[in-house]
Amino acid sequence: MKVAIVGLGYWGPNLVRNFLSSKNVEKVVCFDIQQSKIDRMKKKFPEIEVEQSFEQLLQRKDIEAVAIATPVSTHFPLGMQVLRAGKHLLLEKPMAATVKEAEDLASFADKEGLKISIDHTFIYTDAIQKIKELVNNDVVGDILYFDSVRINLGLFQHDTNVIWDLAPHDVSILYYLVNGIPSTVSAIGAQHFNGFHDMAYITVQYNKSLIAHFHVNWLSPVKIRRVLIGGSKHMVLYDDMNPSEKVKVYDKGVEVNDEESLHHALVQYRLGDMFVPRIDEKEALSVMIDDFISSIENDSHSISNAQFGVNVVRILEAADTSAKRGGISISIES
Amino acid sequence: MKVAIVGLGYWGPNLVRNFLSSKNVEKVVCFDIQQSKIDRMKKKFPEIEVEQSFEQLLQRKDIEAVAIATPVSTHFPLGMQVLRAGKHLLLEKPMAATVKEAEDLASFADKEGLKISIDHTFIYTDAIQKIKELVNNDVVGDILYFDSVRINLGLFQHDTNVIWDLAPHDVSILYYLVNGIPSTVSAIGAQHFNGFHDMAYITVQYNKSLIAHFHVNWLSPVKIRRVLIGGSKHMVLYDDMNPSEKVKVYDKGVEVNDEESLHHALVQYRLGDMFVPRIDEKEALSVMIDDFISSIENDSHSISNAQFGVNVVRILEAADTSAKRGGISISIES
Amino acid sequence: MKVAIVGLGYWGPNLVRNFLSSKNVEKVVCFDIQQSKIDRMKKKFPEIEVEQSFEQLLQRKDIEAVAIATPVSTHFPLGMQVLRAGKHLLLEKPMAATVKEAEDLASFADKEGLKISIDHTFIYTDAIQKIKELVNNDVVGDILYFDSVRINLGLFQHDTNVIWDLAPHDVSILYYLVNGIPSTVSAIGAQHFNGFHDMAYITVQYNKSLIAHFHVNWLSPVKIRRVLIGGSKHMVLYDDMNPSEKVKVYDKGVEVNDEESLHHALVQYRLGDMFVPRIDEKEALSVMIDDFISSIENDSHSISNAQFGVNVVRILEAADTSAKRGGISISIES
Amino acid sequence: MKVAIVGLGYWGPNLVRNFLSSKNVEKVVCFDIQQSKIDRMKKKFPEIEVEQSFEQLLQRKDIEAVAIATPVSTHFPLGMQVLRAGKHLLLEKPMAATVKEAEDLASFADKEGLKISIDHTFIYTDAIQKIKELVNNDVVGDILYFDSVRINLGLFQHDTNVIWDLAPHDVSILYYLVNGIPSTVSAIGAQHFNGFHDMAYITVQYNKSLIAHFHVNWLSPVKIRRVLIGGSKHMVLYDDMNPSEKVKVYDKGVEVNDEESLHHALVQYRLGDMFVPRIDEKEALSVMIDDFISSIENDSHSISNAQFGVNVVRILEAADTSAKRGGISISIES
Repeated sequence: MKVAIVGLGYWGPNLVRNFLSSKNVEKVVCFDIQQSKIDRMKKKFPEIEVEQSFEQLLQRKDIEAVAIATPVSTHFPLGMQVLRAGKHLLLEKPMAATVKEAEDLASFADKEGLKISIDHTFIYTDAIQKIKELVNNDVVGDILYFDSVRINLGLFQHDTNVIWDLAPHDVSILYYLVNGIPSTVSAIGAQHFNGFHDMAYITVQYNKSLIAHFHVNWLSPVKIRRVLIGGSKHMVLYDDMNPSEKVKVYDKGVEVNDEESLHHALVQYRLGDMFVPRIDEKEALSVMIDDFISSIENDSHSISNAQFGVNVVRILEAADTSAKRGGISISIES
Repeated sequence: MKVAIVGLGYWGPNLVRNFLSSKNVEKVVCFDIQQSKIDRMKKKFPEIEVEQSFEQLLQRKDIEAVAIATPVSTHFPLGMQVLRAGKHLLLEKPMAATVKEAEDLASFADKEGLKISIDHTFIYTDAIQKIKELVNNDVVGDILYFDSVRINLGLFQHDTNVIWDLAPHDVSILYYLVNGIPSTVSAIGAQHFNGFHDMAYITVQYNKSLIAHFHVNWLSPVKIRRVLIGGSKHMVLYDDMNPSEKVKVYDKGVEVNDEESLHHALVQYRLGDMFVPRIDEKEALSVMIDDFISSIENDSHSISNAQFGVNVVRILEAADTSAKRGGISISIES
Repeated sequence: MKVAIVGLGYWGPNLVRNFLSSKNVEKVVCFDIQQSKIDRMKKKFPEIEVEQSFEQLLQRKDIEAVAIATPVSTHFPLGMQVLRAGKHLLLEKPMAATVKEAEDLASFADKEGLKISIDHTFIYTDAIQKIKELVNNDVVGDILYFDSVRINLGLFQHDTNVIWDLAPHDVSILYYLVNGIPSTVSAIGAQHFNGFHDMAYITVQYNKSLIAHFHVNWLSPVKIRRVLIGGSKHMVLYDDMNPSEKVKVYDKGVEVNDEESLHHALVQYRLGDMFVPRIDEKEALSVMIDDFISSIENDSHSISNAQFGVNVVRILEAADTSAKRGGISISIES
Repeated sequence: MKVAIVGLGYWGPNLVRNFLSSKNVEKVVCFDIQQSKIDRMKKKFPEIEVEQSFEQLLQRKDIEAVAIATPVSTHFPLGMQVLRAGKHLLLEKPMAATVKEAEDLASFADKEGLKISIDHTFIYTDAIQKIKELVNNDVVGDILYFDSVRINLGLFQHDTNVIWDLAPHDVSILYYLVNGIPSTVSAIGAQHFNGFHDMAYITVQYNKSLIAHFHVNWLSPVKIRRVLIGGSKHMVLYDDMNPSEKVKVYDKGVEVNDEESLHHALVQYRLGDMFVPRIDEKEALSVMIDDFISSIENDSHSISNAQFGVNVVRILEAADTSAKRGGISISIES
């Protein structure tokens, strides 16, 4: 299969490197509107082919799939051109700038029999795959809450806020683990400097008793990347900053006594061992790429397929809307 | 001075021990409705005096001040009896179960020329005193945000929820550092077991750009007690679980460039050293007791005086109301 | 059973408190050469009985056992008086100031049918009991090494050095886990201030391939209490400063390939999960006291019995001798 | 300047990359005895030139300096050939397999007016440069001890032991900071698998009261890279595994009281603040290369020059000899 990568800025080169090392890819073609970026890429990876325009690239019959690693505002127009050219599409996360755009991409691809994958890299990490396994095997039990903190001194961006920048990671993890549409989303943010939210607290509620909460922040002096998952059977701590103990599984839980008692608590804790599964360090990006290619070759669904991407954008858009409107609760239709 | 302690359950014995070791206290009189608790206290501290009823205790002319360490629902009735008996009053935190009760206690004491202190122990710790000093000396600069996480496997309580149980600590710290009334409070909680909120996310907003947020949770497998204060000049991390590095002061901040620039970010970071001030380990409870006694002897205001206590309860009551009403924003009148 | 505690300085009060709460003890009698210490103890624990002299105490027929919590130089003379008075003996660690003294106490007690226990509290903690269980059940496999670091800003002592002060803890843990006499001991120390070694590195070697090493230090700005046990099957990290993860069991080990290979390493690693067993927080001192009392009542051997204490002192004395003689290797006869 | 790199295994490619990005280097020529490694390097860095034999490379007049990144046993023969060809020499650490070899290289280069640098990368890191500054400015005061732990599950090597593999890092840091020759070295090691020491404890003593100790270990389940420096004025903790707090400077020290006192300790602690200097993340390897090139261009001494390298090897050789002879003390002549 021949693939093209469009956009060679911050993330594009990682896509190039991983597509080049994929067994199923025979040729990687690159394009960027800045010639200097094309030159730098060609120098670093002489085996790539380069194209002089996006249009020329799309006209090539031999290219089956195109990866778009450009700013989110361009995902929809560029993505639609790719689909119209009859090519499968890999989009950087988030899928699009609005739900409408994301849905249009999804339905058009569906109609044309083309595949879309979104590069939600995190859900392909060994750590999240382990946690998913713990959820699927009912080790976690009912998920009571999902609490995420993703904060550091982050790069201030000109064209987006902290919600669209940082929350896609945790929203995609939440959606992957819970596998369901929430009922409401609300968010409160603060804008200290340039008119964009630089920190936000997002709350996502489900009809059942599950509550999810995200703290995203560009203004923290310390870097924290931590998800806490409270389950009725086991609780999970996922600390992405801890290189040797990324996932901790606690045999701690809560039990409700059946009989009423005046003198003893009805709710009791179960305290047990803790377990740190071995996490392999294979690169998640290459697993995502394999999943995308496999979805094309086998006409199957990748994990982070179009519908997955749409649902992540629905939560992000609702959070952004809520933050801009003072924290009001936004309903998500299922 | 002679003082009385009423309520010898979980916290009362600590008050007894600290009043006994205070230089300004010549006699400590104790009472509890459970005789067994009185007996245990008398066995542990033979030098205390015990009384057989609350009424008898209040009739004693020699007792100048009474500390109430009973459940919060009883603070108002017992506290009013103490004030009506013409005695100064120390109340466990929170001051009362409602703003109305707290205000009535405050105004009655004021009218009678009596002192009230609330045992907001945390604000008397050396750690918080250091941070207050950093704020006062403009080392922190403008406070941009206050983010607190206070979570662990907590005791489920029959008569209260996690907001009234855990948030008083952080709300009192926030109010002490910021020294101002917020404009709105909202909170979203979850009730997984017995009908009380067992976790909650509370947001407190001020008219200026300051935002405060509290995560309180009885269902966490790990114990976290952490406050992050983002300042325009320095940022502070207060980690109460770190015995040797409780307070970290980061010379990291954000600067806004004056001139517009297409190619460079307008907002830039300043990255510098980090500093861990020495924290003394003197017992905060004895400092609070000294402050209470001193307010009586010098007819002055203690730090956690009646008005302080009222304002903490205003934030707590608003958070509780918001959580019960699905997270709507509650205005605080100043 | 009635017991007496002699020496009410730093550690004695802990013994008093734990003997008082033991079900098998009906009376606790106390003595110290400083009357002020006796008075303080009587005030704190009114239920104790006090004696006016060590001789009077020894003459009492009703006292079956005496605990000695005095400086180590007095363990031998006081301990022998206790044994001569026909009473069982509990000694603070280390058992005595020399191997000769320790052996004399052991053999005299043996001859008289009296019990001696040494208060090696650490080996009675739940953490060490768990590790012992892992060793006994062959989870650890062959112990390849035992590496201990016990350092902090310690109290400089007038009458002893850092080896006799800190090493007894780790030497007793090593001896308990390995259950064998080493072949040689060497130690290198440094004396920076008052003529006593304030830091030392002790190496203990066994005839098999097991090597043990202890770093004890009064001059460290950070407090570390860590033991690393390399086993052929699992490795164990015991970090006494980590309140929630004291013992970590690593499924990491080394395997030697049978066949020679030019291009691949003959020695390979096995990398697996990590496991943190639940550690109960019951007070180790009370477990030690129960073991001592049980050894008297059942005419059995306590874990830290006289022979245990003698062997710990043999290693300590050899380390001290080596440190004073520039690090020469000292043989231990088995 | 044109430079050549010989040996393109594990470390060589890093040298190639850094020489390529040096402003003072116009051409980088590479050679390895394995053609496949040359090909890989040429593919990764098309701008390099390659040579077909070591001899041809040495005959080129345009090459001024040669970097040798081959196994330590070949450093002497290859290094001598480089020097005989009249070229400056950069050697991977350690400088040579024996003191004799290292001294011969040093004296030959000296005679010929050629420069040698050893790639002791660690001493060029910003962290060690900061600590050196603290030592030079007398912030540390007298160095009382230097304690290093460098342990992990390390690669078992066929041709060397853990002393030659891991200790060069810490020995070079010690020698850089102390800037003096020790009086004696001793080491005790253990060989569990393939006849090479896989763990060792090395003690280095100076005539003054300074003691240094190194724990190197290939068999640890946890990775620790930590140096503790006890100074009379401040103490320093260098933890290379802590990305955000690599260097901690403690205002903790020890003071000796002048007057004798029966009841108080003569030695007292000073407990103060802690300070974490900002550490820049520039690549140490490029700083080392600049230092090497500068020594050639200015006819000056680089920090890790030939004499530096010789002294590191003297300590390593003595440690290895001691470990092989059961830990006897080896004198170092100054």
